[in-house]
Amino acid sequence: MSLNGTYDDDNIFAKILRGDMPCVKLYEDEHTLAFLDVFPQSKGHTLVIPKNVQARNLLDIDESALAPLMHTVQRLTRAVNTALMPDGIVVTQFNGAPAGQTVFHLHVHIIPRYEGETLGAHAGGGMADMDELNALAAKIKAAL
Amino acid sequence: MSLNGTYDDDNIFAKILRGDMPCVKLYEDEHTLAFLDVFPQSKGHTLVIPKNVQARNLLDIDESALAPLMHTVQRLTRAVNTALMPDGIVVTQFNGAPAGQTVFHLHVHIIPRYEGETLGAHAGGGMADMDELNALAAKIKAAL
Repeated sequence: MSLNGTYDDDNIFAKILRGDMPCVKLYEDEHTLAFLDVFPQSKGHTLVIPKNVQARNLLDIDESALAPLMHTVQRLTRAVNTALMPDGIVVTQFNGAPAGQTVFHLHVHIIPRYEGETLGAHAGGGMADMDELNALAAKIKAAL
Repeated sequence: MSLNGTYDDDNIFAKILRGDMPCVKLYEDEHTLAFLDVFPQSKGHTLVIPKNVQARNLLDIDESALAPLMHTVQRLTRAVNTALMPDGIVVTQFNGAPAGQTVFHLHVHIIPRYEGETLGAHAGGGMADMDELNALAAKIKAAL
């Protein structure tokens, strides 16, 4: 089964959590970290990950760590809604490569949808402009 | 903002919760109900909804109700994985019609992915065969 396996702490999100890679941080607490996706599918595409947990996907995580993760997801979804006023928001989480997962540290996507705009391809759309991401981050943080 | 608004208890999931509409039930507890989507995007497409909560979407629900909802989502994701052995599983939740939401009672989709099979359109794929849904439900319930 492709959904079972061992956690590899060489993944990008583990590096971000160790401080070995930068991120455009939106929020951090004892249990979770939220930051902007640098390959955004839409304006304000946010990621939320658990800290201190070696979970590849939703199957791996303890209930005690899942609740604070989803609380942060809700908090950021509300902030993205307030800050960017999208027409809709998709909250999604991929388990396994055939489901679209590319980084094997559990993460939840918060993807704003805007009427008349189709979603960009994830990595295919290319890396976002850093000035634009920082401006978006300032807006979202102000709404937290 | 389209994500704000009042809860309309004439929606299909409210009717299911009141017992006014049938469903192919997988699991129920004090806080949550899980059942098979009758317009499945793939084999084993499952929905999990909160009970006793008038929440249109993720923005509306109290943290105290979100934690048990996500615990049931995790429980069903594990059961679907064990029972059907898909290659991946997408867990997703739509907020607002422009994000793909069609029923305005908060719900989380658990969508198994199988290598080489593309996802069906949601309602576009037509209603599932009830015998097939009941057979899938028996398998998933046995894995809970």
